[in-house]
Amino acid sequence: MSDLFYGVAYYDEYMPEDRLAKDIALMQETGINVVRIAESTWSTLEPREGEYNFYHIDRVLNAMHKAGIAVIIGTPTYAVPAWLAAKHPDILVTTVNGQQKYGPRQIMDIVNPTFRRYAEKIIRTLMAHVQHHPAIIGWQLDNETKHYDNIGRHMQEGFVRSLREKYPDLDRLNNDFGLDYWSNRIDSWQDFPPVENTINASLACAFSRYQRQQVTEYLAWQAEIVREYAQPHQFVTHNFDFEWRGYSYGVQPRVDHFAAAQTLDIAGVDIYHPSQKHLTGREIAFGGAITRSLKQGKNYFVLETQAQGFAQWTPYPGQLRLQAFSHVASGAAMVSYWHWHSIHNAFETYWKGLLSHDFSRNATWQEATTIGADFARLSPQLAELKAENDVALLISNEAMDALNQFRPGDAQGNIYNDIFRRFHDALYDHNISLDIIHDVNEETARYRALIVPGLYAADDGLLTRINRYIEQGGRALIGFKSGFSDENVKVRSGAQPGILRESCGVSYSQFTLPEETTVRACSADIDCRQDNQAELWMELLTPDAGTRTLLRYQHPAWGDYAAATEADYAQGRAIYVGFLPQKTLISQLFDRLTAGLDLRSRTSAYRYPLVVKKMRNRDGNSIHFLFNYSGEPQAFISETSGNALLSGEKVSCGQPLRLKAWEFTIIES
Amino acid sequence: MSDLFYGVAYYDEYMPEDRLAKDIALMQETGINVVRIAESTWSTLEPREGEYNFYHIDRVLNAMHKAGIAVIIGTPTYAVPAWLAAKHPDILVTTVNGQQKYGPRQIMDIVNPTFRRYAEKIIRTLMAHVQHHPAIIGWQLDNETKHYDNIGRHMQEGFVRSLREKYPDLDRLNNDFGLDYWSNRIDSWQDFPPVENTINASLACAFSRYQRQQVTEYLAWQAEIVREYAQPHQFVTHNFDFEWRGYSYGVQPRVDHFAAAQTLDIAGVDIYHPSQKHLTGREIAFGGAITRSLKQGKNYFVLETQAQGFAQWTPYPGQLRLQAFSHVASGAAMVSYWHWHSIHNAFETYWKGLLSHDFSRNATWQEATTIGADFARLSPQLAELKAENDVALLISNEAMDALNQFRPGDAQGNIYNDIFRRFHDALYDHNISLDIIHDVNEETARYRALIVPGLYAADDGLLTRINRYIEQGGRALIGFKSGFSDENVKVRSGAQPGILRESCGVSYSQFTLPEETTVRACSADIDCRQDNQAELWMELLTPDAGTRTLLRYQHPAWGDYAAATEADYAQGRAIYVGFLPQKTLISQLFDRLTAGLDLRSRTSAYRYPLVVKKMRNRDGNSIHFLFNYSGEPQAFISETSGNALLSGEKVSCGQPLRLKAWEFTIIES
Amino acid sequence: MSDLFYGVAYYDEYMPEDRLAKDIALMQETGINVVRIAESTWSTLEPREGEYNFYHIDRVLNAMHKAGIAVIIGTPTYAVPAWLAAKHPDILVTTVNGQQKYGPRQIMDIVNPTFRRYAEKIIRTLMAHVQHHPAIIGWQLDNETKHYDNIGRHMQEGFVRSLREKYPDLDRLNNDFGLDYWSNRIDSWQDFPPVENTINASLACAFSRYQRQQVTEYLAWQAEIVREYAQPHQFVTHNFDFEWRGYSYGVQPRVDHFAAAQTLDIAGVDIYHPSQKHLTGREIAFGGAITRSLKQGKNYFVLETQAQGFAQWTPYPGQLRLQAFSHVASGAAMVSYWHWHSIHNAFETYWKGLLSHDFSRNATWQEATTIGADFARLSPQLAELKAENDVALLISNEAMDALNQFRPGDAQGNIYNDIFRRFHDALYDHNISLDIIHDVNEETARYRALIVPGLYAADDGLLTRINRYIEQGGRALIGFKSGFSDENVKVRSGAQPGILRESCGVSYSQFTLPEETTVRACSADIDCRQDNQAELWMELLTPDAGTRTLLRYQHPAWGDYAAATEADYAQGRAIYVGFLPQKTLISQLFDRLTAGLDLRSRTSAYRYPLVVKKMRNRDGNSIHFLFNYSGEPQAFISETSGNALLSGEKVSCGQPLRLKAWEFTIIES
Repeated sequence: MSDLFYGVAYYDEYMPEDRLAKDIALMQETGINVVRIAESTWSTLEPREGEYNFYHIDRVLNAMHKAGIAVIIGTPTYAVPAWLAAKHPDILVTTVNGQQKYGPRQIMDIVNPTFRRYAEKIIRTLMAHVQHHPAIIGWQLDNETKHYDNIGRHMQEGFVRSLREKYPDLDRLNNDFGLDYWSNRIDSWQDFPPVENTINASLACAFSRYQRQQVTEYLAWQAEIVREYAQPHQFVTHNFDFEWRGYSYGVQPRVDHFAAAQTLDIAGVDIYHPSQKHLTGREIAFGGAITRSLKQGKNYFVLETQAQGFAQWTPYPGQLRLQAFSHVASGAAMVSYWHWHSIHNAFETYWKGLLSHDFSRNATWQEATTIGADFARLSPQLAELKAENDVALLISNEAMDALNQFRPGDAQGNIYNDIFRRFHDALYDHNISLDIIHDVNEETARYRALIVPGLYAADDGLLTRINRYIEQGGRALIGFKSGFSDENVKVRSGAQPGILRESCGVSYSQFTLPEETTVRACSADIDCRQDNQAELWMELLTPDAGTRTLLRYQHPAWGDYAAATEADYAQGRAIYVGFLPQKTLISQLFDRLTAGLDLRSRTSAYRYPLVVKKMRNRDGNSIHFLFNYSGEPQAFISETSGNALLSGEKVSCGQPLRLKAWEFTIIES
Repeated sequence: MSDLFYGVAYYDEYMPEDRLAKDIALMQETGINVVRIAESTWSTLEPREGEYNFYHIDRVLNAMHKAGIAVIIGTPTYAVPAWLAAKHPDILVTTVNGQQKYGPRQIMDIVNPTFRRYAEKIIRTLMAHVQHHPAIIGWQLDNETKHYDNIGRHMQEGFVRSLREKYPDLDRLNNDFGLDYWSNRIDSWQDFPPVENTINASLACAFSRYQRQQVTEYLAWQAEIVREYAQPHQFVTHNFDFEWRGYSYGVQPRVDHFAAAQTLDIAGVDIYHPSQKHLTGREIAFGGAITRSLKQGKNYFVLETQAQGFAQWTPYPGQLRLQAFSHVASGAAMVSYWHWHSIHNAFETYWKGLLSHDFSRNATWQEATTIGADFARLSPQLAELKAENDVALLISNEAMDALNQFRPGDAQGNIYNDIFRRFHDALYDHNISLDIIHDVNEETARYRALIVPGLYAADDGLLTRINRYIEQGGRALIGFKSGFSDENVKVRSGAQPGILRESCGVSYSQFTLPEETTVRACSADIDCRQDNQAELWMELLTPDAGTRTLLRYQHPAWGDYAAATEADYAQGRAIYVGFLPQKTLISQLFDRLTAGLDLRSRTSAYRYPLVVKKMRNRDGNSIHFLFNYSGEPQAFISETSGNALLSGEKVSCGQPLRLKAWEFTIIES
Repeated sequence: MSDLFYGVAYYDEYMPEDRLAKDIALMQETGINVVRIAESTWSTLEPREGEYNFYHIDRVLNAMHKAGIAVIIGTPTYAVPAWLAAKHPDILVTTVNGQQKYGPRQIMDIVNPTFRRYAEKIIRTLMAHVQHHPAIIGWQLDNETKHYDNIGRHMQEGFVRSLREKYPDLDRLNNDFGLDYWSNRIDSWQDFPPVENTINASLACAFSRYQRQQVTEYLAWQAEIVREYAQPHQFVTHNFDFEWRGYSYGVQPRVDHFAAAQTLDIAGVDIYHPSQKHLTGREIAFGGAITRSLKQGKNYFVLETQAQGFAQWTPYPGQLRLQAFSHVASGAAMVSYWHWHSIHNAFETYWKGLLSHDFSRNATWQEATTIGADFARLSPQLAELKAENDVALLISNEAMDALNQFRPGDAQGNIYNDIFRRFHDALYDHNISLDIIHDVNEETARYRALIVPGLYAADDGLLTRINRYIEQGGRALIGFKSGFSDENVKVRSGAQPGILRESCGVSYSQFTLPEETTVRACSADIDCRQDNQAELWMELLTPDAGTRTLLRYQHPAWGDYAAATEADYAQGRAIYVGFLPQKTLISQLFDRLTAGLDLRSRTSAYRYPLVVKKMRNRDGNSIHFLFNYSGEPQAFISETSGNALLSGEKVSCGQPLRLKAWEFTIIES
């Protein structure tokens, strides 16, 4: 039975002086019980081709082991040494901007056989050297692997080969992808043009999917090598990341997390997020929900998150604690900072670790020591928490690619992840805990409500399964543009929203962009007096017979069209929304959708900034986390009774409670 | 005697299913009497080099003919097949951004002999195959041809050759183009550097003119081939387009429409424009005025315009009708939508046709059926309308190039087309109908007023002819920067505005940029209390003796300088404006300029959004179009008497009339 | 004893007609006594390889000499002829954007041996031809020389060679530059990657320094050639320029002015600046302060400044005079306009000279004639003025490079020159005249106050010398981020601000970005009620014992930290500021820092827009310049007594004075 991991990334290689003993002593003071090392140090490990130097690895492993701190070793392959690029310039990835030049990390061509050969060699040499060291508890494959927008020769040829396998008949390809448009037909495999400049989104999206498959294949290839050496008790993980907007914003377009995670024992992830007065916990929740789903609800590792981070992230007092326990409340088995110290070298110098460049006991570090102590003390209650959500949100890399090719209008925030985040965040703020899924099937039938934002491209099967889910009693909130095109991004020629019309009981033939258009409620239980803007897109909906109109547009020309509708469909119910609603309206539609259901996912009658999470612990007890995500104190009435784990006090239902700025409480009941 | 054409572009090639019979039946219901086909389907017609497939062409021709729908066939050359690019990569155009990559249309090097050879082959093969088909009424050469910013070897070499012919003496070239500046002299033809990065605007503008000449030559070359096959009763046309800003904004910089149109029988054009609450009719008017002038006032084809178009263009009820009759009121003989259905393939998918992707009878289509019926019913009155304007606006591709090299300040809207549109739109809103001309000569002496915006580069001849026009009784409104440089974009060394000083009676040696500067009126008939900003540019004008100052700048340093002046010059009069005025001030200056004249171009005492156009029909009757370009009803007093063609009612002068939102009436008198 | 020079650049080569005699007559009328010629005319001088043509040079020299106008000849090398680029394309510089294409000036590879060979040839031929002409008073090397972002083969190889000389041991290089980060180690000189895409700011900054050294070397190489021919009485100068933001904004990043100036006899510079209502004199002051320092306070040449300049610069009445005498008040021995006439050729056409394109006696020219007359009349009093400042501002190209790599936040205005200008301009507005220095040493011990903005990268020596300066009685205002990293841009691992903690008595381990954060005063003599924003950066300062806190942040989380502190250190005093203050706060901190000192640099109790400069003339008299930098008249009380040089009137201390808009007075006392 394992405890919560509290960790840091540690780089003996980058230290301005020998600090190993001092650092370990300070780590022990902090409560650190795991370090992650080596993942970007190829040129240190192999300074010249075939010459190896494991000095730093060995001394860190030995010292950590002696101190009782576990070690995760990362394969060092995500940054290539200068000698390799100098000898084999073709290993540098080619993107639409040309071949990348040496300097940054993550610029290699991961499908290049030469790169693979050298990568395999350093992995095998490292594994052989360290495999028996008792400090090691697991292995991280590479780091934040993506396809790096690879359009190189190997990627292009592989893609064409994959199509050739799927399409013995080129006419079928031309038809499925609609290549005849603008004379883009391909009538001989030899003439297949480079995909990079295609205007055809069917082709572009198929290529994008192929690129993601190569990430999956690459990680599986590394896993296979690593497992030849790994001990049975050691895990294999990877550090996934998210769409980056200066922080972890949304679904990763360049990796299929669900497919790639299959090769792993434990899913790992990095989650960076706004801080200070912009700290909301939303990224911790959505990143956690995705990562938790990758291995069927198994606890996951937050292999990287911010300690001090960027200058604008320096945490306010209390925030580091709040963040750490929010990860735990999402199901994290590890919270590990990137990184221990702050880099003195002249890159990522201002992405600060737990310690500043002066290694002193700064205020952030001091707060970390309280987390370390609480993790150790409360692991019996808080390790291996399980979520029991009955609400799910459906994501799709394929729909994301396609929708991003055909964005709803030109306004800011018109891409898939903006829409996904809007729906996710609305429910987060509404204290609806949710799981994130990437398919609808028998397994997902257990969810009582399903949110489907922007499912622009989907095959008949998925749409039919969504219909069946509703038919069998599910409740679904379907967002605009869903169902519009098939899996090849060709628009369906029947009434929209395609196959979903059956369950949603609504159709449209025309749509437009809202220009400061609002909606009005057609139902007494929806309040549209505020936050009533129709954003991004407006489908001019016509309800089928029996379908209830929930919202209409307020507009001189479009006022007769429905903006949102609700239909009963066999045992279930579907709400369809033809525009992007604001968060409070989404939460009202959700409440209407789930009226009469006693949802486990509905964790509180309170709303953000009071965020409530419920998890089940190993003892079968319910763990209630109550987080104050604001700089103001919050007073409220306890909705549960039990033991407050931090204070040790008893809490009874109905008892007034109070949280200071950025404070939280945890109640076991 | 021909009827009005009501058409659509039709692509059997792109249909997700065989719909030809269904589509034709629906077209007949719509009143469609012409379709345009084939213009971008090279790869369908010739899937492999030398293998031809006319399946779609043949079946469409046969079915249309049977249904009594005429067909225009476009040569398919504006999008090249993948096999051609694969075999001859050099046919892809090179621009300052490098050689274009396969994918989009309009990426070929139109002066490349290899491309010409293949293009000629497919044109000849297609022509030979279809030339005798009775459905065909005419041919469209290529589509929206431009030079595609071609700086390739053939273009560069041809340009140097053309200079060499003009300049046997390099010293003369160095002098005419001012190449000595910054050591750019060329003292040997062998050393002629690539033009692409020149700093010398004389050279750059000469190259730009040469590029346009190649478009003219290319279309003439296609026309010659097509005419070898075409029947005598068939016309040859081309689909010109305009400077594109998400819609047809201004004069096309990459084609000399006037020169290129000489090879055509009938001028064709596409006009796309803002819609919904941004629909004004301005683009329909200016596009029509240019296109009408290309063949000396002959009626022209609107070969493409929007049905539903982009999502933000979905027309409000009434707008599709308003647009169609606005084209007719500008002299269009055809209104043809791009396109019939909406593309299911994954490009231009959201540039919607008359039908949506579901092929249903949507609201826009329903409105189209009323247009079709009215076109058929009213063709006797509305076909072959002639304009009888006596006001003209002078445009110049050469002035545009030059002014855009030397933009007045850095503010938004500082390029030629912004300035052109300001003057055009001011008069449109003022209900002054105008022709657009590209030269001043004996032919244009018939105009009673002439507007000259931004004629930055012009040879002595043109400026002298403008002076003579005024001298002989013309009235001219001359805009800032006119006359400043010669045809080679070298600044004249005499007083400004160069040769125009003679007629305008004003000069300046200094100028500056306005920073929130306004003007004040020096004449009681001009009201400058509002809309008095001096925009973009301020010439510090000093009137010659006898010249009247109309406006002065309100400025602590420049308050003594004139901002606009008026001079009598022999029989005529010239107003010179040293800055960019707002629209209402332009219309006031125009009224002052034309005081005492009874202009046919002055169609109404009303103003935009009530837009009035007058045309002469085949019977010699006057046709008054009264358009309500607003979402509010308009009440007004009829300024004419006659028959209201839509309702059949009589209208008498002075009678109160009323137009609903986006409604119009047509009165024959 | 020389008079003030009043000059223009003159280009007989670019004239549209033969105007030499007319121009010289007009120059004499203007008071022009020097012209600068030839600096960009290589293709005129050598139209074909080895063919020379000195027609323009000869006739201008002869005519000027006859007219008593002195001539400065520029070597013509900063724009290469087309034939040279055609024959040797490799002489065109390569930057991160690829190899530059022929067209603009300043696109050559100045370390390319072929370019050097041709440049030497034209310089020697020109020098040999003209060296004995009596009109010539001096030589300008090239023009505005920079390294043009050269990353070409020669530059890269030279850089690696220079490192190899410095670092026989690659481990030392890896350590000093922190190359192990992200596997960027270099363990063999053969593998040294191109620097262009490095992520490592240590490497990037070292390369930037090397690039600047090549500019120094290039100018020294030209100087050596020129001096082989130059007469003893002729000077060698160069026209330096500044960071360009549409005008001369800040310290030049691409040249080390101090190092490059060593090869010169007299420093020359161009200073362009905002005009009209944006004219402040700030650029004239800072540009003058830097240039004056290059040759130890010797008077310098303003070889170029604007006459009419860009359209937005057309001077208001009075401004041209104000500008000319402001240059003199900073120590200029020459004010020379770029240029005499305005270019008719189609480039830099709107960068207007003293004359417009029409060569008429325009208003600006008329004002110039009064300057010419006054320069001639007042040279006995105003030539060879010396500054006697006791306040200095420290700049550093190395700190600039480093800070710009690690900018404080993402807000606008976050680069070195913005910060430098903030401090400079605060003191300018406060009527504190200052010198600009690039080192702190025995020589600079004479300054009583020192301003140190953004000294992000500095070696131990410089920081120690700053400490010593304070220790020995200096007063220093140290700005945020100073002392943070060493000369290789590696962050110091001790407490910040590194070695400066000793003198400043303050430290910090954490910092963040201000989001609308203000500061509050902890001292009665500082008024923070307005202009109290903390901009860009916030260091969370903790004063050492004995250090006084001057300012704190107003912030819920950071309110206990100091924002600015003051410490006594031996004989001296240091104020440290952890954020970017607004100008009025900087001036308050300066006043506090220098309380009790009677500074010569403090020229007035008045503030901008009344700007006061004091200089010492050849007779040892004090010259007071009082400039009204505003469009409003200023009334004030004279702070000095003496003779008003322009009016000839006596002025007594305490006497009311009045300056009209943009007027000034000069009082000798």
